[in-house]
Amino acid sequence: MILTVTLNTALDITYRTAALTPHTTNRVTEVSERPGGKGVNVARVLAALGHETVVTGFAGGRTGDALRELLAAEGPSDALVPVAGTTRRTIAVVDESTGNTTQLNEPGPVVTPAEWAGFLTSYRGLVAEADAVALCGSLPPGVHVGAYAELVRVARAAGPPVLLDTSGEPLRRGIAARPDLVKPNADELARLTGSREPLRATRDARRRGGRSVVASLGPAGMLAATPDGTWRAAPPKAVRGNPTGAGDSAVAGLLSGYVERLPWPERLARAVALSAATVLAPVAGEFDRRAYADLLPGVVVTEQVT
Amino acid sequence: MILTVTLNTALDITYRTAALTPHTTNRVTEVSERPGGKGVNVARVLAALGHETVVTGFAGGRTGDALRELLAAEGPSDALVPVAGTTRRTIAVVDESTGNTTQLNEPGPVVTPAEWAGFLTSYRGLVAEADAVALCGSLPPGVHVGAYAELVRVARAAGPPVLLDTSGEPLRRGIAARPDLVKPNADELARLTGSREPLRATRDARRRGGRSVVASLGPAGMLAATPDGTWRAAPPKAVRGNPTGAGDSAVAGLLSGYVERLPWPERLARAVALSAATVLAPVAGEFDRRAYADLLPGVVVTEQVT
Repeated sequence: MILTVTLNTALDITYRTAALTPHTTNRVTEVSERPGGKGVNVARVLAALGHETVVTGFAGGRTGDALRELLAAEGPSDALVPVAGTTRRTIAVVDESTGNTTQLNEPGPVVTPAEWAGFLTSYRGLVAEADAVALCGSLPPGVHVGAYAELVRVARAAGPPVLLDTSGEPLRRGIAARPDLVKPNADELARLTGSREPLRATRDARRRGGRSVVASLGPAGMLAATPDGTWRAAPPKAVRGNPTGAGDSAVAGLLSGYVERLPWPERLARAVALSAATVLAPVAGEFDRRAYADLLPGVVVTEQVT
Repeated sequence: MILTVTLNTALDITYRTAALTPHTTNRVTEVSERPGGKGVNVARVLAALGHETVVTGFAGGRTGDALRELLAAEGPSDALVPVAGTTRRTIAVVDESTGNTTQLNEPGPVVTPAEWAGFLTSYRGLVAEADAVALCGSLPPGVHVGAYAELVRVARAAGPPVLLDTSGEPLRRGIAARPDLVKPNADELARLTGSREPLRATRDARRRGGRSVVASLGPAGMLAATPDGTWRAAPPKAVRGNPTGAGDSAVAGLLSGYVERLPWPERLARAVALSAATVLAPVAGEFDRRAYADLLPGVVVTEQVT
């Protein structure tokens, strides 16, 4: 099975309004809720691709209960660890007059040292059973900034490959623990390396400890620097839509390709096609299966020989 | 006891943000939750004034559970009727850079005819025990537009005086059922009567069926047209702050004055002082007890002889 870790899970709430006008009262016409957080989104896509998937991280309070109830109706298995605090809500307010989205993100529960220790015990057991591990998203308050580095080391000691998808200082420290794969976007890569030149920055990120580094470059596709070579992968055409979750779908594509032992060009093609099919899906964070099947054969993967 | 009815109760959530910027991701720094809806707010103030108070209306789903749990820690008794749908959330986003608030209001649960019938049975029993009844706020989806007229008639048949504080078509129909008191604000009164001249509009509202009509005129205080006379009541000084809940505090002032058999000028003075003390309170919807005690003796009540 594939294990995804989401330390700061979220109940993702979407509000539709005719128009969002600041400093007034806005009537919400439609409310929907979904279990969220990056690793939960990755797990949903992996399950849709037919992979046995287990979700772990923290969940607590009424929003944690709501998240677990909604997760039980989806594909992944629930190995979330209870926490005394309350799982955060994220609210996406979609303004129907413009199509724009305003996001409000709660901070998340404060995790105590005892809760972190309890999570580590559970994580060690899950990692021993896993074919691959994905560590995704931000850290909740109270969790130490080197948490991902610690989780990378546990996974490396146990054996399965570990992918890291986070940002800022947790990424900087996590990459130094030598994860098998990191998947920064262009902004995260620039913050990490100080370079906005993708090829240079991706190679720099490898020197910092990432065995393979796959940078997601938005509509331009992906750039992968690996021990086997360096590739660019681009979608057959530019797609327009909602990019929410596109990066999580790319992670699912890379991980599924890894456990299926696909060569790098095929993993990248899958990641790029899933990502574009997520931008095209009518519901944020889902992927359009037909678009995925249509796009996959057209992804252009080019080896970079420099 | 005093019974307050809130058909569309709410879990009131307040978010603090450094600045709310539309079409971006906004980090919420502080989250607080409170049981809400206009009748719940009225009951909170009545309980703070020392009155035995019972809250009814509908509550359902996880947000309904959260509301009831928070209500249990406050003064009023809980006689809310369960509903299969989910109680709405309201979100007040306070932008700390400007102090402005952006409000997002969910629509509320769809109430079925069977749930409405169950509520009516419960309401009949509660009204028989009540010294006064307050009907407050908007109607949730599914409840018929003449609902307040129906609740006014039940109260009038049972005996206790009934106050109506709503707007639009539910007010128009409710007032025709001859409630003892209606408390529109200036906008609601203008929509009801077509007149922006408060004295004319207040008297017109009496002709439409309100035995007494007390119009809240914001910082200018209140105007009351009653069988005993017509009065204006004005606060001793203009107050600046958050007007959220000021109207609900005024309702609590009027109702408590009624059951204590105060003459109209004293009821109005109490309503105006409570309303101003709510504007001055640091937490939206609470009232500042010291400000209330300071303001009360200074409220100027003038009889209108025309």
